[in-house]
Amino acid sequence: MLNPNLQTTQIAYSDDMINLAVGQPALSILPTEMMSQAAIAFAQQKNPEYLNYGKEEGDGHFRQALANFLTEQYGFPSALDEFFVTAGTSQSLMLICTLMTQPGDTILVEELTYFLALNLFKEHHLNAIPVSMDENGLDPDALEKILKQMGKPPTLLYIIPSYQNPTTVNLSNERRQKVVDLSQQYGFTVVSDDVYQMLGYEGETPTAIAKHIAGDSVISAGTFSKILAPGVRLGWIQAGPEILKKFRKSGLVASSGSLNHYMSGQIRLALEQGMQTAYLQELKQVLNHRLNLMDRTIQDHFPLETVSYTKPEGGYFFWLRLPEHIDTCVLRKEAVQRGLGFTAGPLCSPSGQHQNFMRLCFTFYTEDEVVDGVKRIGELLKEKV
Amino acid sequence: MLNPNLQTTQIAYSDDMINLAVGQPALSILPTEMMSQAAIAFAQQKNPEYLNYGKEEGDGHFRQALANFLTEQYGFPSALDEFFVTAGTSQSLMLICTLMTQPGDTILVEELTYFLALNLFKEHHLNAIPVSMDENGLDPDALEKILKQMGKPPTLLYIIPSYQNPTTVNLSNERRQKVVDLSQQYGFTVVSDDVYQMLGYEGETPTAIAKHIAGDSVISAGTFSKILAPGVRLGWIQAGPEILKKFRKSGLVASSGSLNHYMSGQIRLALEQGMQTAYLQELKQVLNHRLNLMDRTIQDHFPLETVSYTKPEGGYFFWLRLPEHIDTCVLRKEAVQRGLGFTAGPLCSPSGQHQNFMRLCFTFYTEDEVVDGVKRIGELLKEKV
Repeated sequence: MLNPNLQTTQIAYSDDMINLAVGQPALSILPTEMMSQAAIAFAQQKNPEYLNYGKEEGDGHFRQALANFLTEQYGFPSALDEFFVTAGTSQSLMLICTLMTQPGDTILVEELTYFLALNLFKEHHLNAIPVSMDENGLDPDALEKILKQMGKPPTLLYIIPSYQNPTTVNLSNERRQKVVDLSQQYGFTVVSDDVYQMLGYEGETPTAIAKHIAGDSVISAGTFSKILAPGVRLGWIQAGPEILKKFRKSGLVASSGSLNHYMSGQIRLALEQGMQTAYLQELKQVLNHRLNLMDRTIQDHFPLETVSYTKPEGGYFFWLRLPEHIDTCVLRKEAVQRGLGFTAGPLCSPSGQHQNFMRLCFTFYTEDEVVDGVKRIGELLKEKV
Repeated sequence: MLNPNLQTTQIAYSDDMINLAVGQPALSILPTEMMSQAAIAFAQQKNPEYLNYGKEEGDGHFRQALANFLTEQYGFPSALDEFFVTAGTSQSLMLICTLMTQPGDTILVEELTYFLALNLFKEHHLNAIPVSMDENGLDPDALEKILKQMGKPPTLLYIIPSYQNPTTVNLSNERRQKVVDLSQQYGFTVVSDDVYQMLGYEGETPTAIAKHIAGDSVISAGTFSKILAPGVRLGWIQAGPEILKKFRKSGLVASSGSLNHYMSGQIRLALEQGMQTAYLQELKQVLNHRLNLMDRTIQDHFPLETVSYTKPEGGYFFWLRLPEHIDTCVLRKEAVQRGLGFTAGPLCSPSGQHQNFMRLCFTFYTEDEVVDGVKRIGELLKEKV
């Protein structure tokens, strides 16, 4: 039996648990073969410059390769001087809090959001106020109302505009424009967590919010975690010149140089040789297949007369509304005893609401396990409705 | 000519500048061949677990390999559960500030210290008070006097106890014990930056302060930056169970998993196969040779009737006392015009003192350039004394 002290990954697979709360890729989905090839090709270059401290904002060649990749993916031009390289979006958020907020500041977040970001904000002594959402994402009218009521504008607005976690909705292009306009009018920074921006499988993906960075009121935080591999810990901030200056001049990179320098050299090669583009194309097919599988299984096994959801068009998740009398925090305990897991709505709600919602992820288990897990959660729900 | 936007490293070599302020390894010193071998061997394992999110405190196998390595290097046993893996010491310091201090807290630092750490402390709204030092490092009597005067104990004491930056001195074993005793008596945490602990070339290295972690008042921050390669961005915190818990439960690793997971797999291999141990042995010889070369060149070319220093026994630097009438901040400007650089004393002083001191680093340039740079700084000094 594995010594638990020797565990390598954050979440270990277990024979008696299908936890559809886990928002991570399956080991089988990860680009093991491709990353091995990229690592070997990079190692064979024997470039000592990637072993030394890297330029504060990141290697220029890597940023050029990234700009080319995003120009292709986003459909509008990006340039290397729009980027600051980080060790992933979580670190980007941590740096944003350290460099752009003061303890005690108020920030705005979506009423449903990435729950682990809330911890990061708390650790930086920020007060997060939720803004309501609907099926088109954050409601700009609600946002404007809050802004008008606040004596002092918030420092930041944190949003996940594409294939949102947990709601799966997209913020429409018109709303993106409205949010950006408000940020300039009221003087706050939009921090856009664009982790799922490139994971659209069906329909049209809204334009990446990075299109709006020129006005220096928008930060797009991107990452290789969901389009390549979380273990590489490589991400970026895309922003205007005034914002980027703060990051380039930060105490952290003055001391450490670029935040994941060696790895940026390896991923530069994967970008330049088209490996990342090819893998992303393949990945979207694999994830779309899983999304459809989860959808069919829900259709076949959930009590649909009382459960509703919109089939997502991208991302990692399903977001389901259950009958009002069901408290998913309570239901979850029962599920765990049956070897099942899901994310209870209130966990994703800064105000602790949405008791009768659940989030399911289709990426971490085998397809058979995803089907089995959904079926058995369906059985549990049928007992309750 | 190189497009400066495409620069890869933090500091670029230039034909018309020998800047002995730069505290980084030369490209020629870095383990290019060995890292290439380690990367290829690791890539050939094709282990997808290093591509996914890593366990919060770091891969157990890596921590075991690290514990074995430090047991051998430090000469006393370390265990895997004493470690939390980070992306280098700068990130360790940033996390320590975020998780262990409150904005406005007072911390203590050495009167001469790593100047870039001071920026990190400022960014976290900490007030740093200096404690005086002598030729045996931090003065525990001065420390105790300050502690007695403070109404509320400081949150942290930040020290670099071995081959100190910039003074090159070692904190004696008795003083280490005294500092640890005071931390327990007054209730603050000793944050020990042990970046040079394994870089002793002559004489006896004091016992690593990690020996004192059991009482949960000491953090040893270690890194592969100076014993292997800064570009890998891999380091660790070694501490007692109560301190480590804060890091394991932090918002950052809850979200990102282990802080440089893929790289920890690659370095695990370098540790397990003895590559790190072999390289460190070789590195110490190379650096000792350079240290002796700088020493001889200073002896031959500096105006020693008015310049004094103690030959260091390890680390990266020389620390020289010049005549009192010389202000190294002024002298530095003149040096730069001649294509020379050094670190002016006040930069390393939290109180802005030590105007007549300079730090020289012997690691970043070729041996010929180091000799040339020291000779020419000697000439400049002779004009001034």
